[in-house]
Amino acid sequence: MSLPTLETTPIPGLVVLRLDLREDARGWFKENWQREKMIALGLPDFGPVQNNMSFNAKRGTTRGIHTEPWDKFVSVANGRAFGAWVDMREGESFGAVFTVELDPATAVFVPRGVGNSYQTLEDGVTYSYLVNEHWRPATPYPALDLADATAAIAWPIPLTEAEISDKDRTNPSLADAERMAPKKT
Amino acid sequence: MSLPTLETTPIPGLVVLRLDLREDARGWFKENWQREKMIALGLPDFGPVQNNMSFNAKRGTTRGIHTEPWDKFVSVANGRAFGAWVDMREGESFGAVFTVELDPATAVFVPRGVGNSYQTLEDGVTYSYLVNEHWRPATPYPALDLADATAAIAWPIPLTEAEISDKDRTNPSLADAERMAPKKT
Ligand SMILES: Cc1cn([C@H]2C[C@H](O)[C@@H](COP(=O)(O)OP(=O)(O)O[C@H]3O[C@H](CO)[C@@H](O)[C@H](O)[C@H]3O)O2)c(=O)[nH]c1=O
Ligand SMILES: Cc1cn([C@H]2C[C@H](O)[C@@H](COP(=O)(O)OP(=O)(O)O[C@H]3O[C@H](CO)[C@@H](O)[C@H](O)[C@H]3O)O2)c(=O)[nH]c1=O
Repeated sequence: MSLPTLETTPIPGLVVLRLDLREDARGWFKENWQREKMIALGLPDFGPVQNNMSFNAKRGTTRGIHTEPWDKFVSVANGRAFGAWVDMREGESFGAVFTVELDPATAVFVPRGVGNSYQTLEDGVTYSYLVNEHWRPATPYPALDLADATAAIAWPIPLTEAEISDKDRTNPSLADAERMAPKKT
Repeated sequence: MSLPTLETTPIPGLVVLRLDLREDARGWFKENWQREKMIALGLPDFGPVQNNMSFNAKRGTTRGIHTEPWDKFVSVANGRAFGAWVDMREGESFGAVFTVELDPATAVFVPRGVGNSYQTLEDGVTYSYLVNEHWRPATPYPALDLADATAAIAWPIPLTEAEISDKDRTNPSLADAERMAPKKT
């Protein structure tokens, strides 16, 4: 299996990985995350302790924008999604936006302090991610409005037609959102 | 999120986890692997370094029986599969077979030395697993014939109708297969 390639983005530390999807008559196989190869490419040795998966029944399901204080390694297990990130860290790149289409050959490393969100582009998409801190039920985390006018994310499916949780309908705008600790230099 | 429950099996160290699948209007969310909770339940702190995913286009796709010298934490990201394991470790439980249906709420911890295999029960199933050693392209690993008469796995879809790789059509029988180091006590 060849090395993934790594692309930098306008959000410092947020990188896109193009994975080697090995197709055969059965379907495909991927090394979704491979510690040694990805460290060699420059990814931090982030030490995952939890693997979460979310299944989305309908095209247009939209989740976010969540700014937990931990790193995430995100990808889709099947299907396609539109991924969107907003830098919520105090500093020069505060408010920077990056979007990319997530297909099974694409993964994104999201450093802590960057808001994470996605919208599914097909029915039945499973989104999978690794994180390096445990989620605690009693600790709410900062979030940003999916429809924030400053971030102005170009959602492929209008949010008015999207399945969105009640929680994600009440998140603050960029001006009011909690600013995160600046990125490590 | 409540703790998963853990079930032992006839294969020492191979355990089934029933996960808390949190369903809502969007679909579901699961902590597929959660280090702290799973250690508390008795799972080893196995230290994953690689997350592999395999997508299977057709119902009946069958992969295995692979006996790599590392631990695996396996589950499906969507859909359903029939999972089958054969103890290949020298010792009392050599040849013991365990099978279970894998749906998104089920995960299995497979200790090193146990042969791993599955057959998809629907079209379009992604199987995801964490392992604690890196795969090396030049190192072949031991395997067992999917149709082995002694293990006699009751595949839901006859192997004659299954999509199987060329490699998996030439694996040895239990009598001829490589025996693995005995389980740690
Ligand atoms: C396991 C592994 C495989 N590969 C490559 C080798 C092949 O080009 C392609 C598919 O490998 P195969 O060995 O045919 O995949 P598959 O039959 O699904 O078996 C895999 O999946 C099995 C899970 O059922 C595992 O027990 C085996 O680790 C694993 O080899 O991916 C990688 O690049 N990295 C890997 O870690
Ligand atoms: C993150 C997390 C959530 N939960 C529970 C809380 C809820 O009952 C259910 C769904 O949580 P929600 O927060 O609504 O899930 P969702 O909107 O998809 O957001 C998640 O997925 C997002 C990825 O887009 C992440 O950025 C957030 O970490 C995460 O909260 O799962 C857990 O039990 N464990 C967890 O780690």
